[in-house]
Amino acid sequence: MKAVRFFGHKDVRVVDDVEKPEPKGDEVLLKIGGAGVCHSDLHVIDEGIMPITGFTLGHENAGWIEALGPDIKGYKKGDAVLVYGPWGCGHCKPCQHSKENYCDHQSEMPFGGGLGLNGGMADYMLVPSSRLLVPIHDLDPVIAAPLTDAALTPYSAIKRSLHKLMPDEYVVVIGVGGLGHVAIQILKAMSSSTIIACDITSEKLAFAKELGATHTVNSTDKDAAEQIQKITGIKKAKVVLDFVGAKPTITLGTQVVSLDGDLTLVGLGGGVYEYTMMGLPFGVSMINPYWGSRTELIEVVGLARQKKIHIEVERYHLDQANEVYDRLRQGKIKGRAVLIP
Amino acid sequence: MKAVRFFGHKDVRVVDDVEKPEPKGDEVLLKIGGAGVCHSDLHVIDEGIMPITGFTLGHENAGWIEALGPDIKGYKKGDAVLVYGPWGCGHCKPCQHSKENYCDHQSEMPFGGGLGLNGGMADYMLVPSSRLLVPIHDLDPVIAAPLTDAALTPYSAIKRSLHKLMPDEYVVVIGVGGLGHVAIQILKAMSSSTIIACDITSEKLAFAKELGATHTVNSTDKDAAEQIQKITGIKKAKVVLDFVGAKPTITLGTQVVSLDGDLTLVGLGGGVYEYTMMGLPFGVSMINPYWGSRTELIEVVGLARQKKIHIEVERYHLDQANEVYDRLRQGKIKGRAVLIP
Amino acid sequence: MKAVRFFGHKDVRVVDDVEKPEPKGDEVLLKIGGAGVCHSDLHVIDEGIMPITGFTLGHENAGWIEALGPDIKGYKKGDAVLVYGPWGCGHCKPCQHSKENYCDHQSEMPFGGGLGLNGGMADYMLVPSSRLLVPIHDLDPVIAAPLTDAALTPYSAIKRSLHKLMPDEYVVVIGVGGLGHVAIQILKAMSSSTIIACDITSEKLAFAKELGATHTVNSTDKDAAEQIQKITGIKKAKVVLDFVGAKPTITLGTQVVSLDGDLTLVGLGGGVYEYTMMGLPFGVSMINPYWGSRTELIEVVGLARQKKIHIEVERYHLDQANEVYDRLRQGKIKGRAVLIP
Amino acid sequence: MKAVRFFGHKDVRVVDDVEKPEPKGDEVLLKIGGAGVCHSDLHVIDEGIMPITGFTLGHENAGWIEALGPDIKGYKKGDAVLVYGPWGCGHCKPCQHSKENYCDHQSEMPFGGGLGLNGGMADYMLVPSSRLLVPIHDLDPVIAAPLTDAALTPYSAIKRSLHKLMPDEYVVVIGVGGLGHVAIQILKAMSSSTIIACDITSEKLAFAKELGATHTVNSTDKDAAEQIQKITGIKKAKVVLDFVGAKPTITLGTQVVSLDGDLTLVGLGGGVYEYTMMGLPFGVSMINPYWGSRTELIEVVGLARQKKIHIEVERYHLDQANEVYDRLRQGKIKGRAVLIP
Repeated sequence: MKAVRFFGHKDVRVVDDVEKPEPKGDEVLLKIGGAGVCHSDLHVIDEGIMPITGFTLGHENAGWIEALGPDIKGYKKGDAVLVYGPWGCGHCKPCQHSKENYCDHQSEMPFGGGLGLNGGMADYMLVPSSRLLVPIHDLDPVIAAPLTDAALTPYSAIKRSLHKLMPDEYVVVIGVGGLGHVAIQILKAMSSSTIIACDITSEKLAFAKELGATHTVNSTDKDAAEQIQKITGIKKAKVVLDFVGAKPTITLGTQVVSLDGDLTLVGLGGGVYEYTMMGLPFGVSMINPYWGSRTELIEVVGLARQKKIHIEVERYHLDQANEVYDRLRQGKIKGRAVLIP
Repeated sequence: MKAVRFFGHKDVRVVDDVEKPEPKGDEVLLKIGGAGVCHSDLHVIDEGIMPITGFTLGHENAGWIEALGPDIKGYKKGDAVLVYGPWGCGHCKPCQHSKENYCDHQSEMPFGGGLGLNGGMADYMLVPSSRLLVPIHDLDPVIAAPLTDAALTPYSAIKRSLHKLMPDEYVVVIGVGGLGHVAIQILKAMSSSTIIACDITSEKLAFAKELGATHTVNSTDKDAAEQIQKITGIKKAKVVLDFVGAKPTITLGTQVVSLDGDLTLVGLGGGVYEYTMMGLPFGVSMINPYWGSRTELIEVVGLARQKKIHIEVERYHLDQANEVYDRLRQGKIKGRAVLIP
Repeated sequence: MKAVRFFGHKDVRVVDDVEKPEPKGDEVLLKIGGAGVCHSDLHVIDEGIMPITGFTLGHENAGWIEALGPDIKGYKKGDAVLVYGPWGCGHCKPCQHSKENYCDHQSEMPFGGGLGLNGGMADYMLVPSSRLLVPIHDLDPVIAAPLTDAALTPYSAIKRSLHKLMPDEYVVVIGVGGLGHVAIQILKAMSSSTIIACDITSEKLAFAKELGATHTVNSTDKDAAEQIQKITGIKKAKVVLDFVGAKPTITLGTQVVSLDGDLTLVGLGGGVYEYTMMGLPFGVSMINPYWGSRTELIEVVGLARQKKIHIEVERYHLDQANEVYDRLRQGKIKGRAVLIP
Repeated sequence: MKAVRFFGHKDVRVVDDVEKPEPKGDEVLLKIGGAGVCHSDLHVIDEGIMPITGFTLGHENAGWIEALGPDIKGYKKGDAVLVYGPWGCGHCKPCQHSKENYCDHQSEMPFGGGLGLNGGMADYMLVPSSRLLVPIHDLDPVIAAPLTDAALTPYSAIKRSLHKLMPDEYVVVIGVGGLGHVAIQILKAMSSSTIIACDITSEKLAFAKELGATHTVNSTDKDAAEQIQKITGIKKAKVVLDFVGAKPTITLGTQVVSLDGDLTLVGLGGGVYEYTMMGLPFGVSMINPYWGSRTELIEVVGLARQKKIHIEVERYHLDQANEVYDRLRQGKIKGRAVLIP
């Protein structure tokens, strides 16, 4: 079968002599419907954060069950499913609780298909356990693939603060890109807090309004913080979700977040912030969440099946992998690219 | 000034020789904008549940501050406010926590303006403490008055279960009347659970759909429980909100509620249920909530200001109080009647 | 190998020609250290609640790993483990969340080893998945076996209400038996609420005091409710845990539970309660929990390893199974009987 | 009457010509039993963080009600009470919720008796509202005064993380001083997490063990983080409470806190931390809490009445105020100094 493999620094090749795996025990063989192309792949391909090579890329995967290990009950051939991305040890308390994204053994990589182990940019993918599957019923796997990361990550960040997102409160979303534009949809679907979206272009701000933002502020404006405070009044924003994570966005977040609020940094923009206890309002939780849990992915599917979240998808063939990564490097992908076998 | 007073069994009179009160200490004098007419008034007037007489009726009150006690800071004459309804002792832990609806001293009546103490069916109303005010800013007090009960009660019942109302779950609303029709709007605004509404007429069910219910089931159908289970599948409804509280609706609730779910009985329909531990799914919380907290009323105002909840209001003059109560007894009030001085 | 099997109404036999199973896939073979003898076995043996026969009894199991299915990583031969009792489908959201006790498919029995499937009253036991194991490290499996039910069940009931069990609040424990006496220890270890224990003999009440109860009340006293209210004052008990579940104990619970409190019915005493919304304080959650989750069992092991809970164990040999069940029927087991191969 | 007043930089004087106030409206006049002497007073006196002068010092106050404003019900002369310290606006949502420590108007100082307004280092103190009182019943006001800050602050920090402090988890307390030594007692009383205490002297570490710490580590040891990780294993500490807040302690915290854990910085040691998203484990909440809520102070009193927390008190007369502040500057106060009129 065909697979898109990572062979070392900037060396990605489509190979076609990969043996189709056979599932044993609790393993599942998936016929891939779509594999999302994510920015973090570029960290692997271009920046060499992964010491392992020779594996199949693709950590946003969806497809149909092709074959089941002999020990599996409750699934059958043809079922459409997502593959949960961060593969933990399965035994520690976080894993038992479905939070494999915080597996006690996370530092012992590899940590998931497409991230050191064989992923979904291939005709077939071997999933190591049926616990990593989430049924999608009538959803199309091509469209559903990006839910596993581009929707699950903001979903989990938002759910963490959901009890603070009451109808009299304000939430600021910084960055209306791949994750941020889904965050706005999730906030609209699950809360009635007033949504203030920030980005650096008027197109992105207009897009944010379409998706449900009540107010928009251009974060490059010198008085961006004042503009936001004018909207929120003295109570400020109970939750700030930063999908950029650069120094200026983190600083903006600290200026507009409320006493006893949440400042959640999702974007890995490499920002450095000089944290002092008096440097931001008292009682703020500054959080750096990572991906989401298995049960949260079940809930994300619930949102998608009700058409409350939508991720714009560009379809490409597996063979176009390198072309797509180039387009991604050049910022030419709008929404999410999905590779289809 | 004029006031609608309760003088004993079915004896309500509009009197016009009531002295206009003067606020002392932390008291507030309110110029009434509107006073909602609630079914529970009939329990007082017709059924004699209140041993006290001679007080002004009206426990859903809104207006403008006319005069402030000398000790009050932070409010000024003319501010539009709601009056929080259940007046607790103010000192016990629930009251300190804003949950005066569960004041330790609740059994020591009277328990609020219009419920033993002078309420808002008058030109002016004396509110015993500024802690009982909630600002409504640009909302019209006439429209806002019913928020204090008809919206706050379902809001509080829903908020209690909000962590269970995830997008993959189902919620059943039984009774699309005064409180139930607001519940559907709140659920739509604050959750993405699939809403199944039940009532006994097709008009009510159509109304429920307009407000945001995904599915409707006529609860008089013999197979109502089966119809609901067909929608929910084996997982059943994680939350059931019963705004009727009669024996058949409680029974329906026990049939469709999920393991580890919430069965919340709001409607005082007098239903009796033979509770046994094996008689309903394991892990169910059966709850009989009462009204809501002061901070929840702040949140309800947040919903109303964003036009996410709307209560249909019929306007009447104070002098029409007895006529309105008659219409209420005859089921002729659609939405909520509000008396205006 | 030897096994204690259920062959039908009151027909339990020790057989010795059972084949030692071999673990495949994700299965685990356990060398049994101890299998707890539980009252609910008598519901199976004497009352015929289980339509299945021919299986090995024992649902409170602990031992050492004898052999691992080929797909298992993270465990090794000789590891001391508990077996989590309620075996769900493994795929539904509650199971994914470790709450197999509320598996969506619970009504589709059999539901665990010793409850329709082969349990732990045998030399060896086959556990269907490694997800059902909880390591106990340095704990003795003989002593640890009852943790899986006699400790997990009260633990889960208490954890549900833990946010209400603050140091200024009161908790009432009704029934200082197998589960109740563990509940008192858990409450002492994890909360600072004042503990009021109720039972019907002075021995039990003295025992409750030893374990950490601050006050004791004989629940057969006519004024038991008044005695409790004298201790709690007007605020009453925020949480009531009823480990009996008979009509008088449920009634007592409704009399002493606080507004907005939890009335948790654990004991399957068959009590019937005429539930009406006005019949108990407003805002009370009446709950019928069942067993606990996998991650809660991990936490229970944490308590036991710190010697914060202790279950008195009487040791018997497998061959004495029928003798032990007789002693249990006669109320002669103090603490928990454990069968040892 | 006599009062200890702040007149400017390092200028504290005991004056005796202060007029005894008279309570109006909802005000309360307190006969002071004791006023705690807190390090943060030195920030006011020596460092000039407060632009206001001429007020009476003392923000940890307890006493007996001497006179009540005419509008107050539910209290009577002679009642022993604590005075809740951070005085918010009383109207905003946090204040309504009893969290005046996070009042929306916090930046608009003065913010409490002894912190810009007249405090409790005097014969009598005027409390602006009865909502700021917490009854202490049979507790001695001299001993109880420090509960309002030295106990409430760690209590609130711990309560925030209580749902993470399960019996299988580890909690690290850095700094066994005025607040930290109370934190250990609270953790022992309300959780069964394993407590690891850190400080820089063997006396402090021995004291921590007496109070309930399971393990102690000298935080000046070069391998302090490794020592802690050896205790916790790979799962690390779910909660770290830093009562120092200096750069080395914050760094230690980031090294030992778990994925998805809480790193709570209470001590105002002025530490600067270079925050980057990859610089600490994913999912960590870094929090800088401030004081506590009114209802949490009620709960703290519950702990003290059960003798589960104890603060060592040194008694001094009001006239000794300057002497006591000197001793405090020199680090000679063990436990908490309390001024008694």
